Amino acid sequence: MPDNVREAFDKPPGRVSLAAMTKLSKRIRGLTAGTGDGWSIHRRAVRLRAQGMPVIDLTVGEPDVRTDPEILSAMDAAARGGHTGYSAIPGTDALRDAIAARVEERTGVRTARGNVLVTPGGQSALFSALMAATDPGAEVLFPDPFYATYPGTIRAASAAPVRVPTRASGGFQPAEAFLRAGLTDRTSAMLVNSPNNPTGAVYSRATFDAIARVARDADLWLISDEVYDTQVWSGDHLSPRALPDMADRTLVVGSMSKSHAMTGSRVGWLIGPETAIDRIADLSTHTTYGIPGFVQDAALHALSLGRAFEERIAAPFRRRRDACLARLAGQQVVGVIPSGGAMYVMLDIRATGLPGLDFATRLLDHHHVAVMPGESFGDAAAGHVRVALTRPDHELLAAIDTIVALAGKMIP
Amino acid sequence: MPDNVREAFDKPPGRVSLAAMTKLSKRIRGLTAGTGDGWSIHRRAVRLRAQGMPVIDLTVGEPDVRTDPEILSAMDAAARGGHTGYSAIPGTDALRDAIAARVEERTGVRTARGNVLVTPGGQSALFSALMAATDPGAEVLFPDPFYATYPGTIRAASAAPVRVPTRASGGFQPAEAFLRAGLTDRTSAMLVNSPNNPTGAVYSRATFDAIARVARDADLWLISDEVYDTQVWSGDHLSPRALPDMADRTLVVGSMSKSHAMTGSRVGWLIGPETAIDRIADLSTHTTYGIPGFVQDAALHALSLGRAFEERIAAPFRRRRDACLARLAGQQVVGVIPSGGAMYVMLDIRATGLPGLDFATRLLDHHHVAVMPGESFGDAAAGHVRVALTRPDHELLAAIDTIVALAGKMIP
Repeated sequence: MPDNVREAFDKPPGRVSLAAMTKLSKRIRGLTAGTGDGWSIHRRAVRLRAQGMPVIDLTVGEPDVRTDPEILSAMDAAARGGHTGYSAIPGTDALRDAIAARVEERTGVRTARGNVLVTPGGQSALFSALMAATDPGAEVLFPDPFYATYPGTIRAASAAPVRVPTRASGGFQPAEAFLRAGLTDRTSAMLVNSPNNPTGAVYSRATFDAIARVARDADLWLISDEVYDTQVWSGDHLSPRALPDMADRTLVVGSMSKSHAMTGSRVGWLIGPETAIDRIADLSTHTTYGIPGFVQDAALHALSLGRAFEERIAAPFRRRRDACLARLAGQQVVGVIPSGGAMYVMLDIRATGLPGLDFATRLLDHHHVAVMPGESFGDAAAGHVRVALTRPDHELLAAIDTIVALAGKMIP
Repeated sequence: MPDNVREAFDKPPGRVSLAAMTKLSKRIRGLTAGTGDGWSIHRRAVRLRAQGMPVIDLTVGEPDVRTDPEILSAMDAAARGGHTGYSAIPGTDALRDAIAARVEERTGVRTARGNVLVTPGGQSALFSALMAATDPGAEVLFPDPFYATYPGTIRAASAAPVRVPTRASGGFQPAEAFLRAGLTDRTSAMLVNSPNNPTGAVYSRATFDAIARVARDADLWLISDEVYDTQVWSGDHLSPRALPDMADRTLVVGSMSKSHAMTGSRVGWLIGPETAIDRIADLSTHTTYGIPGFVQDAALHALSLGRAFEERIAAPFRRRRDACLARLAGQQVVGVIPSGGAMYVMLDIRATGLPGLDFATRLLDHHHVAVMPGESFGDAAAGHVRVALTRPDHELLAAIDTIVALAGKMIP
């Protein structure tokens, strides 16, 4: 992820001319309100590497492999074959069918073409789902810690983000009582993410049952971000859309970014009831006008490579996660949140007494290892750091050793 | 443009389950409110052609050439070279610089990288501009006739569309008095489009002066859709951003779809004050997360081909427009709106006494020529049909003859 991708999150107010700002809509001025300087570590790491410093950068959630040449060949063939004009806005029939088949196979829920909207990436699917599930002024519940774009995406839809705290001691699983405590008569949707970024938590069946109960009782849309569905390290991926009476109120966000190492292709999907998908396709007509046909053909080819290909892309993260946990076993300095999925491990460094940002800053300045401060992802991750499993094993394990050694020195 | 691209505009209410609909946001349920069945002719034309009927389809605004293989080679080289990961969300530095240079060269307005946001197509730039220029409940003025997505795009931003009528007799140029009559204390933006789809009007300097006066007096954002900027058949393209004191309140929508025959690549841009572009890039982080790096590299290559390439893509439309006007000269049956730009000619068939849809239906059913009823683009185009110049010259001229002959027979 290049440096300026994340500029959004901490632009210094000094750069903004007040006259022009006043004319901008309130929603756009307030988009990134209250978001801390979470990405400063990442940006400094990129800068230091550019200066020749051998920094191990474990800040970003992007696979360390490029998109497979076979997929790029399919894209080129489609483009040269003439798929360069306007494409069907909800997605090509073939791609929608292939996504429907994959979703049905992985979740057991009957899924047809009409349940699938192809979107330019999972982020776009998330934004579209929020636009459909909320009207201005509505509230959206989501567990804290959370993926960094959630609050801004909810605000972009003119709705209000409402964070539901989770606890490291509970494996960052949201508790039913905490979810219910967040409800008001303006709540119209709940947004959950399992496997979870940043915590690596995979929600249990009991957690999902509670989420579903709350959604049904309060008549909410459930937006389920499942972009890490191929990265579940024990058991199977569970989609809440498969729970009783949930398919008609659940919108599932999917993406080929992590599952197929296609981050830059910007191709994802939204799954939901056909009536909702129909209308959200109308929204796509007005927001993006569809996605390139040649990218859709590339995605179709990637899906045709089947589960074996997805497992090949996920394998390094599974291996590195296991290696990290093995390396961390037996030491008492750093707390380890059992990572059930996704390409991250959260480490509890509260024994050092340092906030995550201070710890990460020392780690980078003195030891050339870059990790994300937990505070970047919400209050519930304070005193933690997120380690992305996105560097070769030997680098990653060296970094883990460095983190433990530094934490050991810091403990009073 | 495939058949289902436009399904959005006239979905029969019978397909919608009321229970699921009630849960959807009001904004999404009302997105296409009041839009007539404008695209039925297009869809029937596609169906008849699929059945083997030799229909001349002049409904859609898509160049009849594919994206140039040289541009596709650049895309493939970029993808194989590794530009497959997350790309900078506001656009790559190189592409932003190239767009800035093109805008500055064509308009004379100083334009730097910071004034440019790369977007997945012009439609996305338009949506982003509206999100930045309005808060929920604001009103947006735009001339009628209008491009079909305008009302829905304004509604998608939770703002209210306000149509300003123009007159065929005035060449569909908006009059200052009519613009002022549309103002309320909730008006926050004005949206204009020159060269114009569907009318082919190119706004005069006097028209733009009036638009700028109204924007300044009422302290409005001016959103200027200039996606047909290479298709001006006499004189030069005029951008209102170049008018005195307008650069700091104008957001320009651009696209490579028409200028470079890259409709399917979904690459466009928004130009505006740097402070606004900064914030709208934040919005992109939350709506699309940028566009593919390999598409950006393809666009960069396309821009490097310079003005000569753009003129080559525009040439057929210029030639066909001249040929159409020559063919129509001397006859009194059909009124011709002098087409100053864009890939359309509007024909006034009010002498037949038929609404545009009835005339277009007869034309398709009995003579196998498909054109868009003017009513698809607003009340001000009633009794007109829009002819897209997107078929080879001989087909187009045969269609023009057919239209004149049918109109002649219909005149009472």
